Amino acid sequence: MVVVMDAEATDEDVARVADTVRAAGGEAFVSRGVARTIVGLVGDVEHFDRLDLRTLPGVADVVRISVPYKLVSREHHKERSTIHVGGVPIGPGRFTLVAGPCAVEDARQTFEAADMAKAAGASLLRGGAFKPRTSPYAFQGLGEKGLEILATAREATGLPVVTEVVDAHDVPLVAQYADMLQVGTRNMQNFALLQAVGAAGKPVMLKRGLNATIEEWLMAAEYIAQRGNLDIVLCERGVRTFEKATRNTLDVSAVPVAQNLSHLPVMVDPSHASGLRELVVPLARAGIAVGADALMVDIHPHPEDARVDGSQALVGSDLRDLATAVRTLPQLVGRELTAPPGS
Amino acid sequence: MVVVMDAEATDEDVARVADTVRAAGGEAFVSRGVARTIVGLVGDVEHFDRLDLRTLPGVADVVRISVPYKLVSREHHKERSTIHVGGVPIGPGRFTLVAGPCAVEDARQTFEAADMAKAAGASLLRGGAFKPRTSPYAFQGLGEKGLEILATAREATGLPVVTEVVDAHDVPLVAQYADMLQVGTRNMQNFALLQAVGAAGKPVMLKRGLNATIEEWLMAAEYIAQRGNLDIVLCERGVRTFEKATRNTLDVSAVPVAQNLSHLPVMVDPSHASGLRELVVPLARAGIAVGADALMVDIHPHPEDARVDGSQALVGSDLRDLATAVRTLPQLVGRELTAPPGS
Amino acid sequence: MVVVMDAEATDEDVARVADTVRAAGGEAFVSRGVARTIVGLVGDVEHFDRLDLRTLPGVADVVRISVPYKLVSREHHKERSTIHVGGVPIGPGRFTLVAGPCAVEDARQTFEAADMAKAAGASLLRGGAFKPRTSPYAFQGLGEKGLEILATAREATGLPVVTEVVDAHDVPLVAQYADMLQVGTRNMQNFALLQAVGAAGKPVMLKRGLNATIEEWLMAAEYIAQRGNLDIVLCERGVRTFEKATRNTLDVSAVPVAQNLSHLPVMVDPSHASGLRELVVPLARAGIAVGADALMVDIHPHPEDARVDGSQALVGSDLRDLATAVRTLPQLVGRELTAPPGS
Amino acid sequence: MVVVMDAEATDEDVARVADTVRAAGGEAFVSRGVARTIVGLVGDVEHFDRLDLRTLPGVADVVRISVPYKLVSREHHKERSTIHVGGVPIGPGRFTLVAGPCAVEDARQTFEAADMAKAAGASLLRGGAFKPRTSPYAFQGLGEKGLEILATAREATGLPVVTEVVDAHDVPLVAQYADMLQVGTRNMQNFALLQAVGAAGKPVMLKRGLNATIEEWLMAAEYIAQRGNLDIVLCERGVRTFEKATRNTLDVSAVPVAQNLSHLPVMVDPSHASGLRELVVPLARAGIAVGADALMVDIHPHPEDARVDGSQALVGSDLRDLATAVRTLPQLVGRELTAPPGS
Repeated sequence: MVVVMDAEATDEDVARVADTVRAAGGEAFVSRGVARTIVGLVGDVEHFDRLDLRTLPGVADVVRISVPYKLVSREHHKERSTIHVGGVPIGPGRFTLVAGPCAVEDARQTFEAADMAKAAGASLLRGGAFKPRTSPYAFQGLGEKGLEILATAREATGLPVVTEVVDAHDVPLVAQYADMLQVGTRNMQNFALLQAVGAAGKPVMLKRGLNATIEEWLMAAEYIAQRGNLDIVLCERGVRTFEKATRNTLDVSAVPVAQNLSHLPVMVDPSHASGLRELVVPLARAGIAVGADALMVDIHPHPEDARVDGSQALVGSDLRDLATAVRTLPQLVGRELTAPPGS
Repeated sequence: MVVVMDAEATDEDVARVADTVRAAGGEAFVSRGVARTIVGLVGDVEHFDRLDLRTLPGVADVVRISVPYKLVSREHHKERSTIHVGGVPIGPGRFTLVAGPCAVEDARQTFEAADMAKAAGASLLRGGAFKPRTSPYAFQGLGEKGLEILATAREATGLPVVTEVVDAHDVPLVAQYADMLQVGTRNMQNFALLQAVGAAGKPVMLKRGLNATIEEWLMAAEYIAQRGNLDIVLCERGVRTFEKATRNTLDVSAVPVAQNLSHLPVMVDPSHASGLRELVVPLARAGIAVGADALMVDIHPHPEDARVDGSQALVGSDLRDLATAVRTLPQLVGRELTAPPGS
Repeated sequence: MVVVMDAEATDEDVARVADTVRAAGGEAFVSRGVARTIVGLVGDVEHFDRLDLRTLPGVADVVRISVPYKLVSREHHKERSTIHVGGVPIGPGRFTLVAGPCAVEDARQTFEAADMAKAAGASLLRGGAFKPRTSPYAFQGLGEKGLEILATAREATGLPVVTEVVDAHDVPLVAQYADMLQVGTRNMQNFALLQAVGAAGKPVMLKRGLNATIEEWLMAAEYIAQRGNLDIVLCERGVRTFEKATRNTLDVSAVPVAQNLSHLPVMVDPSHASGLRELVVPLARAGIAVGADALMVDIHPHPEDARVDGSQALVGSDLRDLATAVRTLPQLVGRELTAPPGS
Repeated sequence: MVVVMDAEATDEDVARVADTVRAAGGEAFVSRGVARTIVGLVGDVEHFDRLDLRTLPGVADVVRISVPYKLVSREHHKERSTIHVGGVPIGPGRFTLVAGPCAVEDARQTFEAADMAKAAGASLLRGGAFKPRTSPYAFQGLGEKGLEILATAREATGLPVVTEVVDAHDVPLVAQYADMLQVGTRNMQNFALLQAVGAAGKPVMLKRGLNATIEEWLMAAEYIAQRGNLDIVLCERGVRTFEKATRNTLDVSAVPVAQNLSHLPVMVDPSHASGLRELVVPLARAGIAVGADALMVDIHPHPEDARVDGSQALVGSDLRDLATAVRTLPQLVGRELTAPPGS
């Protein structure tokens, strides 16, 4: 059961709902989104009915939810949500491009990549300072030094910054620098990390686990929402299949399915899905055409020198093809390209 | 090793090449496509080199092939092929829509579906007379009666007919009626059936197996080609993954990957991939955007009464959305919608 | 709904049941097993109830079946079945070893392998004369010549012969020579082949499809049973997973699950599952321990020269380890090793 | 490259090796196991060769490693390792049973389960105090209260305790109570957690990820080893497949494969793999037969009341069957059942 608050509800209104539920022996999880606050209730539903919560001040609606994810479900929130990242919107009716280097390697590479991103139509800059790697001997990212470089690139280009956090312990540090916290595919069910980003007060990009079902993905988003944060963007980045010609298999169906089940925006990452530069633009086109709210792509000024995933980074004519796609395709599916801040 | 014949090579020229190879202890497989004939050689490559086949009359080129599928490989045939089905082309530079009922149930349903298909932009009519079913107790199709209905629908609409064959024994019968023989996902490695359709003198649509890799799919196409038939269209129709929200997962990456590896056209079937009407149009858009040469969709005048897969058949506004997509999207990826014959 | 006949029911009794059902507008599928005959009914169950079939002569029981596979289900047949292959039993209370070369290459290799099989404790000889191969250029087996060699090896050793059939057209030929027809993993849903072996009057070994669920496997067995043949042994041979260290992943859980759902015997093939000699004996032990009714293993006198799958064929000390396992482990799970005929 | 120290090497010897490597510009990771200490080197191998490390005091061997996991590889350590947990050995030549409740619910349930475990032949007690759950609304375990109950059960039965840790932040707390730290399947690539347990000074049980390859599993173990801890037991607990009749598919082949690649002990968890009580004993038998070094099973005095996974907990006759299996099967594969401490 979910209590949806009025847009004008005060903090006292919200607290009154939570207190009433707790006094009746239930649990209440308050989640704040840009547009509204909702309160998820856990406990005896029949009993909650008798509390007549709908009559409390500031309450817009009380909805029974039939799916196991309450707060991110579309059942209580028919309209799809728009999330703002440093002022840049991601959501229905528009199409937002996120681009940047897979890993921040140094200031120069990052600035060049940020300029390329902006020129290609991006309104958000991605870049990894903490890299989760299968091998403990692989390059693990520059850490805080990388965050500083990203912050400087933001100043130079005006593009808000999306960056991954891999350890619950690092969330406060990363949140100081980033406009959006990314949770990677291997951490989709790292529940401690989900709770930490849920409490960090920043929008979160939640990548789908390599073999997660869409329901498991939404349950992971629910962990974030339950800690009070509804500013979540879901990111499809390919699932593991038996096909060896691509690193993973981009599941474009997941976009409309997740958009039907949840009010959260859904984006795709064709770079990590395929692992191959020549597939990124075709898959980006497919992602736009299937209705994704945003796209995230790897770019690099010198892919041949990249320390991580250079084989999938766009440069040159591929990047120009991407720029063309993001400027022409969205309007055919009823969307407008999001402009960078200040433009 | 593959011998590529001139467009003007005579039957004698081809026979001379094959005889020379066999006289030298090798095997030669002659495959005829619309544009050219090629001869695949099996045996001692060093030995073939010494035969100096390039000097024989009618020989355009002799190519060493590094992949296990020789005849369908793009190594000896850089240009992508265009296949003609009853005069309707499928291949690069154009986009072809195939539509019709999953199963032929009766004449009226088939004629209505054929009219709907044509109105939506289709230039080929699909319809199943022999249905492979997981359960022996499920409707198995009308058989020859269904083929007769399809032939009448072709006369009425002018649309050439694509229909499935499930048993090598039925190939001659189905080939009498059909313009293109479809091999289904469960039969992708039914080698006896592949050889039979390879020898039938009709274009073949080869669906990817539910869990086949792209290499296995191309090896299956090679079985057809080896029997003398290069008029093959590959059809991606979804692979099995752990996601339960859709019947299968449409692997859009398979389209550019297969097009890079093979000269054969590649199409997608979003209806069988998803099994859900509301996903067919978004996936169809993704298929066009990723660069598919053709699309096949299920339609039905009364999906609620369909005997097979009614839940995925398009009708009404979904079909109108599809019609809009096939008329607007192809040109953004450098393609033109194929017109039906006689238009 | 299923009608179970008495052990003493006559052909007239069976025909009377089928005729009664058909006269009432239903369909009746008669299946004969070693121990009893059953009749599967398709149509309006309420209507069948009114026919009072239980009162007809020769009828032992009438059972409603809740699963989609009727004839192979354990619902009407609580006791697990024992199937006889050339007099050799496979079923509960005993453990049967099937061994032999993956492919029959010549008489000498086959005879040596047959002697090795018998010495290791096998009571049935396997050997492939028709080989389904991913590549059309790979060795496809000796065909009828291979069947003749197997028949001679049977004469020499007394071991009945199990061999694969890959094409419905070849079923009568293979049935002339073989004691048991094997349907391979790629053909599990080749419905024409299933129907042909169902009508051939020989026991059938049905391998599980590479990615088939257990329910799909039992539905495939139902296709065979529906054509009148209940003498079916299910063979688990590994499913496709993401693990690359083994060819496939032997699903030992499938053994007790299939034994609970169906009355048919269930065996395992550790050779094709793993593709690696050093894993065959450990997996064979696991198969016996989990309760398989039989085991099939590849052996070869000279694996290094094998034309197919030499890397998985047992020889030397591995074969001796297998012989020890089949002589000691079965009794710990309440089974006795089946002796070869005439011993 | 790996430097293997003498059993008698001093801390100074180890430090000298590490210092020498670091002085030469390389990285050195020191890992201590029960029997020996090894030092993993990262950097320019040619350069390390010139350091002549083999001549330093306390160095037993210097080995080049060809696989990406150095410290856990069997290349430098031919003999398989035995790990001790509170004095109880897990390793070659013996077979160790770990049993207990999936989740600690209260003292009484835990004590009863611990008594049942000991009676069945267990020498280690398992029990979950921190539970990773797909849903944030599901029971998450008793936390420290659960750890206290486990410690009391250890006192009562003498069985050392294995328990899961789900958050790097909790590692010091859990390490205070537990004899072995368990890392769950969803956390196999939670690199922060792996590093934390690697530094905690306690043996670690590392479960295989739901869809991890064996190589990825060993790389995860390498993260632990790299922090100085070689006391790791690998636990196979089922992989995700398309089969729906079982929760996951126990990959018994993973046992011999991982034992061949790594010197670490390998165990299996048939309870979580299948999720079904009636499959636990057959799969336990398969696990012993395939050569697992240990087995972990869920038991519960009243499964019908269990708060987590009651459907897979053993009780009554199933538990007696397990006790019989662990007392009879190990010797057939050259192993002896490990006795509980003090017996």
